[in-house]
Amino acid sequence: MNNALVNELYERLDSLPILDIHTHVNWKTGTARNIGEILSYHYYTELANSAEFQRGDFPFEDPEELTRLMLPKLRFLRHTVQYDWLMMISREYLGLEAEDWAPENWKMIFDRSVEVMDRPEWKDELVAQAGIERVFLTNQYDDDLDGLDEDFYTPCLRAEPFVLWMDRPQERQKMEAFFRRPIRSVRDFRAIIEATFERFMAHGMGYAAMSIPANFKTFPVSDEEAQRLLDRAIAGEVWGPSEREVWGAYAIARLGDACRRYGRPFHLMIGVDREVYAQGVPGGMDLFTSVNSLRGYDYLLNTYWDVPFPTAVLADTSGLELVASAWIRHNVYPSGHWWYTNQPTDIAREIRRRLDTVPSNKIIGYFSDAYYLEFILPKFRMYKFELAVALAERMERSLIHPNMEPFTLEDALELAEDLLIRNPARIIGIPNLI
Amino acid sequence: MNNALVNELYERLDSLPILDIHTHVNWKTGTARNIGEILSYHYYTELANSAEFQRGDFPFEDPEELTRLMLPKLRFLRHTVQYDWLMMISREYLGLEAEDWAPENWKMIFDRSVEVMDRPEWKDELVAQAGIERVFLTNQYDDDLDGLDEDFYTPCLRAEPFVLWMDRPQERQKMEAFFRRPIRSVRDFRAIIEATFERFMAHGMGYAAMSIPANFKTFPVSDEEAQRLLDRAIAGEVWGPSEREVWGAYAIARLGDACRRYGRPFHLMIGVDREVYAQGVPGGMDLFTSVNSLRGYDYLLNTYWDVPFPTAVLADTSGLELVASAWIRHNVYPSGHWWYTNQPTDIAREIRRRLDTVPSNKIIGYFSDAYYLEFILPKFRMYKFELAVALAERMERSLIHPNMEPFTLEDALELAEDLLIRNPARIIGIPNLI
Amino acid sequence: MNNALVNELYERLDSLPILDIHTHVNWKTGTARNIGEILSYHYYTELANSAEFQRGDFPFEDPEELTRLMLPKLRFLRHTVQYDWLMMISREYLGLEAEDWAPENWKMIFDRSVEVMDRPEWKDELVAQAGIERVFLTNQYDDDLDGLDEDFYTPCLRAEPFVLWMDRPQERQKMEAFFRRPIRSVRDFRAIIEATFERFMAHGMGYAAMSIPANFKTFPVSDEEAQRLLDRAIAGEVWGPSEREVWGAYAIARLGDACRRYGRPFHLMIGVDREVYAQGVPGGMDLFTSVNSLRGYDYLLNTYWDVPFPTAVLADTSGLELVASAWIRHNVYPSGHWWYTNQPTDIAREIRRRLDTVPSNKIIGYFSDAYYLEFILPKFRMYKFELAVALAERMERSLIHPNMEPFTLEDALELAEDLLIRNPARIIGIPNLI
Repeated sequence: MNNALVNELYERLDSLPILDIHTHVNWKTGTARNIGEILSYHYYTELANSAEFQRGDFPFEDPEELTRLMLPKLRFLRHTVQYDWLMMISREYLGLEAEDWAPENWKMIFDRSVEVMDRPEWKDELVAQAGIERVFLTNQYDDDLDGLDEDFYTPCLRAEPFVLWMDRPQERQKMEAFFRRPIRSVRDFRAIIEATFERFMAHGMGYAAMSIPANFKTFPVSDEEAQRLLDRAIAGEVWGPSEREVWGAYAIARLGDACRRYGRPFHLMIGVDREVYAQGVPGGMDLFTSVNSLRGYDYLLNTYWDVPFPTAVLADTSGLELVASAWIRHNVYPSGHWWYTNQPTDIAREIRRRLDTVPSNKIIGYFSDAYYLEFILPKFRMYKFELAVALAERMERSLIHPNMEPFTLEDALELAEDLLIRNPARIIGIPNLI
Repeated sequence: MNNALVNELYERLDSLPILDIHTHVNWKTGTARNIGEILSYHYYTELANSAEFQRGDFPFEDPEELTRLMLPKLRFLRHTVQYDWLMMISREYLGLEAEDWAPENWKMIFDRSVEVMDRPEWKDELVAQAGIERVFLTNQYDDDLDGLDEDFYTPCLRAEPFVLWMDRPQERQKMEAFFRRPIRSVRDFRAIIEATFERFMAHGMGYAAMSIPANFKTFPVSDEEAQRLLDRAIAGEVWGPSEREVWGAYAIARLGDACRRYGRPFHLMIGVDREVYAQGVPGGMDLFTSVNSLRGYDYLLNTYWDVPFPTAVLADTSGLELVASAWIRHNVYPSGHWWYTNQPTDIAREIRRRLDTVPSNKIIGYFSDAYYLEFILPKFRMYKFELAVALAERMERSLIHPNMEPFTLEDALELAEDLLIRNPARIIGIPNLI
Repeated sequence: MNNALVNELYERLDSLPILDIHTHVNWKTGTARNIGEILSYHYYTELANSAEFQRGDFPFEDPEELTRLMLPKLRFLRHTVQYDWLMMISREYLGLEAEDWAPENWKMIFDRSVEVMDRPEWKDELVAQAGIERVFLTNQYDDDLDGLDEDFYTPCLRAEPFVLWMDRPQERQKMEAFFRRPIRSVRDFRAIIEATFERFMAHGMGYAAMSIPANFKTFPVSDEEAQRLLDRAIAGEVWGPSEREVWGAYAIARLGDACRRYGRPFHLMIGVDREVYAQGVPGGMDLFTSVNSLRGYDYLLNTYWDVPFPTAVLADTSGLELVASAWIRHNVYPSGHWWYTNQPTDIAREIRRRLDTVPSNKIIGYFSDAYYLEFILPKFRMYKFELAVALAERMERSLIHPNMEPFTLEDALELAEDLLIRNPARIIGIPNLI
């Protein structure tokens, strides 16, 4: 590793504005109000629960107590990337060094965090300091979007309720109440998706999105077959696995219809196994399986050939499948590095595979998946460092590689800007940037 | 990376003659006649189609127009290994630098390529310049082999028609017509395989080969069961998936019989999913799945213990399975780096795994899979550079590693020659080299 | 790679005592008596059989002849890690250099090995030289444990007979004879497990362990259902795959019960396919499949939430699944690097993934899996070198990484001691160390 070159590249990448195409930020608050909220992020509570078991039970309602309780547990996490994110937040936002994080300092840290974060101007300061230009949200169909700052936030519709949960009576009732129409037929179902898209489009909709269970399959399903399933659900039957599979294939295609009609991308996040760890913290009970094939998406991707599909995968074993898809499929865009693969080892491998074989206008570098705006900068920095290392390596290789043309600093920065700015702006269509 | 050492090793490897044990070269022409043919290689059209969609539709019949159309699209591919291959062809064969590849220069580039490539002596010049000693071909049972230059080309028989397509009436009719005998019984089927091997052996047959669908299975199937399937196919029935599976297992074993009888290896290329991308270019519609186990080959490998099986895998997830098989199985030989795993990231990992655990006389380093002779050198150079990096790293490690004996430059070159020359020559049996 | 730093770190790691939490050492002998026994290790015979086929047939009963026969074959293995282990044994224990290993020197080498190894004091000398503090064993329920040196060895119970083989009449008879009670009911079965644990606890039991077939599943099974299966087995029926699956799920949970009751961990070694290579040497017929999901263990891990599960995986494709499990699950501990993944390439990747995301008190660095005490040091050195490289890289990165706090030599050594000493001592509970 050529430290000087990595440094130079990193500094240039760090100075780029941040477009964050997937977060879980709550637009009404945006930032955390104190370090206890930061520490309540499942990346910390799950590791603390894993290191010193307490049955997933943390005082989430009391951030001060949570802070007191979490601090001694951090000693087990000091080598992790999650801890590195926290220390960056501490150093750069709170002005506290890593040495300050002794368990007995919990009150001082908490108070200092309130001092900084619980001010009305904090969000704007943070956004300016971190250079964040636009943040995409994760929204349910019934999220309140009135008053959304559309110059900064872009709402994105989660498809899970339509695709995965339609046999749950309370889910249907909630939908019926929200849209003020009964759900009796697939026609009603289509109309509700339509109404949802209308709502979101009125607020500058980014895309439809879904975190999809492992081994999900897409295939053609007729309205008649879907109607039969819906009838059964309405009659109170619980769907079995194969009925769930058929409805899922039907419903995801209806989302595809809507994406096509409204000219919006469909962001796929592939391969999660939900709630498999019984004693986990909220948000920390999900895992993935290495046995998961992208073959299940052929029908969707082929049929909705005119819909862009930014795609993230959870399993390391899906990494090259995604690269190969993006390499030949015109409407698949590898998007960021998600969750368990969002750590340096797997990011490093996937960056290299993507850079070596996927067209430069097709790669969406990164998204933070953050719950508070504070996490965007440290996560992007983690990614940008790995990208800088990969680009520096490529520059050095090109000097001696018999098959490579010179790859200059300008080439490297051009490519990085494609990944970080131009591609997300163009593929998803970010206002004022395309 | 020790640049000087990598350079020194690379230069030594680059000076070795090339034995290319798997290509799709057309022996009647060998080289391309112009740059349009080079650009018609699916590695370029698929990337162009992926970067700027045009429904897989390129003017393949008009290489000049194809060149004009492809040139502006190359700007999206400048960082890819595929582009690196092209630039090597341009620089070293056509004398054109990367800077010359401006879209407006398309006519000049095309004309220059015709000037160089469309000469009778071009093939011999290229072969001499690239140091290519022998090229293995991919041949259908009915390919015309009369006049084949057996001092340079080795024909290899593709098994797909026998194993995968026997329920297609037109495929059987073609076979019946070519071999001038009806296919009514498994006895006929065996006789046709026999006749095919006789034909190929008369032209210096290399091996039987097959690119095999993901999750193919081998197991014993009786003649009676196979006859029943054949009867149904002849009666016009279309086989379902399980019948196809049974016939596949039957037929691949008959190929095994023939390989045994004629003393020829069976080259397995494992794990392709054919024609899954609907809008792709010809040759650019296939992908792979990460969910594919080598367990399906146990019966074949155990039963035909006296047949050598050089084996390539398409999925990165099969890489260590292949290494482990070659590590303990006497008749499995890891062979090259195929298609989607034929890029630096995955080559680098597999080289290291193979070097660390597979006997030195069992690894077949590389094959190009080229469609024109022009591609052999750039692809081998890509591989040789990765091999040089791995060998240099090993040399440097051995200096400080407490468990390693010194690994000298001579050791490194010896090992490289095993992979590139001695092993393919001995395992496959290359005339004049064993 | 910063050679000086790697060296310094390695030397410090090498000076740590060795706790080896999984071996196949025979406690009655411990060491090999000659180099022929060393060479009879399947890691050598399988590679020799793979390089020069002899139908898995070696003169295991005649170590001198085995030595003579193996020596010329080692020329194919000189680049492998297995050969590196052998040369370390030769150099450091026998005082013979790599150059001495000419085939014609076989008698000299054998004699020298007898001279060194076949002495009563050899075991103690070796243990002192290698710094081995404690060695965990692999024991069948009926192994003779009388006279076991419990200050050095810890017996561990293999669960395979109970979980995988209960439909084999001879296995049940052996159990019935050993425990002097009939096996007619699940009550008998539970009692036998209880008796086994009592026996092992009396000798300082380490843990229960099992090498588990790929795609094993755990789920609740009632005593009634298990009794029906047992009845059928007693009646002489052979179980089919699904009956085997149900019994396996029942029996592994009974082992879980016992681990809970006796406060012992359950060491899972996941993903082996037994006896798939027909012509292999003893111990060299097993492979793995890349298609294997940890999802099958959810029930076991959730239900026995109070049992620690040190876990090793055989497939590279399970590496990140294991990391993610250990990251959130409080009772999953990634344990070492097993068999086909026990080579530098895969160790290096998994070390980095574990260090970046798993709490420092949860990672068990390494075990040797050795058959003779002689192999412990070379295998640990292979691991420690990779660990030193990863730690050195982390130290260097921390100097320029914008997100990382300084990672000092002390931090690195602290983390290494967690992995190598403190964690195995605490998680498994090693006497005199916790």
